[in-house]
Amino acid sequence: MSASRPAKAAPDASRRSERSRRAIFDAALALVSETGYAKTTIEGIAARAGVGKQTIYRWWPSKAAVLLDAFLDLAARANEALGGDADSEIPDTGDLAADLKHVLRATVDELNDPAFDAPTRALAAEGIVDPELGARFTEALLEPQLRYYVRRLEAARAKGDIDPDADLRIAVELLVGPLHHRWLHRTGPLTHAYADALVDHALRGLAPRT
Amino acid sequence: MSASRPAKAAPDASRRSERSRRAIFDAALALVSETGYAKTTIEGIAARAGVGKQTIYRWWPSKAAVLLDAFLDLAARANEALGGDADSEIPDTGDLAADLKHVLRATVDELNDPAFDAPTRALAAEGIVDPELGARFTEALLEPQLRYYVRRLEAARAKGDIDPDADLRIAVELLVGPLHHRWLHRTGPLTHAYADALVDHALRGLAPRT
Repeated sequence: MSASRPAKAAPDASRRSERSRRAIFDAALALVSETGYAKTTIEGIAARAGVGKQTIYRWWPSKAAVLLDAFLDLAARANEALGGDADSEIPDTGDLAADLKHVLRATVDELNDPAFDAPTRALAAEGIVDPELGARFTEALLEPQLRYYVRRLEAARAKGDIDPDADLRIAVELLVGPLHHRWLHRTGPLTHAYADALVDHALRGLAPRT
Repeated sequence: MSASRPAKAAPDASRRSERSRRAIFDAALALVSETGYAKTTIEGIAARAGVGKQTIYRWWPSKAAVLLDAFLDLAARANEALGGDADSEIPDTGDLAADLKHVLRATVDELNDPAFDAPTRALAAEGIVDPELGARFTEALLEPQLRYYVRRLEAARAKGDIDPDADLRIAVELLVGPLHHRWLHRTGPLTHAYADALVDHALRGLAPRT
């Protein structure tokens, strides 16, 4: 507890930066959840994070840029919490159905978590009505996820587990589209049993013709 | 052209009401497309429709109620324009794939029409972040459509065209979820060829096991 111990010296600049970055992301996600995208401002984020406005502007040029990074960070943390690897590739145990159920169950868990659900809804809603913002978020957040699915399905096709004539982009949409539709419009419960049934129904149509 | 001809008398009250109702619906859909749900007001709708605010309040208790009726009217008109019958049942020609392609192509045409796309996006966006409003619109607009699909699939199952073990609610989601996902997030083109491929991919998994 001696004040002279080097390890107890004031945090260095990089540690302070990391703390500020974390506070800014948390504030941005909380605000967009509570008030929606339109009413979230750089000023509001700064006040809630306890940093100066200029700190945010030093790192990000716009509200959209801060939120984009906050969502990327949220997705990365959610993925780590679920035991995923850093690059978010879908696991390949050799059992396609089991691997897809693992990922869709994890997605269901995320969507049932208010810390993930609320900001993601706010973001989706804004992207739906703002084509420019929607395109940025689709490209940065959604497309990489869809490509992970395509790569896993390509591996399955190479092994002969998927019909060579199947359109893999449509195959991915058969997996994520129904889940997303049910989540956004609240047309049914999001459960692990639903994730499993969805994978089974979608994969049946993708299996090689025998 | 004689002013004394009875048929040329001033429109009666019911015709005047119908004209006002039409103007109010058009104004409501235009405003929600241009400014979003939150900024659309009864006052704004009245001003644009050229009617008094009290005319709207005489028929509808709230903004949500006017918009709900405006969307139901829009959907009914879109359906009529596409040659559908009044109750919007999915046609049953005995060829399930052909009937579903017919309906999904029509949906693609609607979503590519700005007069339908813009207000529907505004509505979807608001429903996503407002659970109470979302539930009202899902119940009044979306669920009836999903039930039409379920009924058509039930008829196909009764004929032996669909596996008896298939979950028909998930089957419907396999058809509408991917299309909706692609539309909302603009992840790919919405074409008739896409509608056809989607039906083919979804139906393959629903066919009876042979």
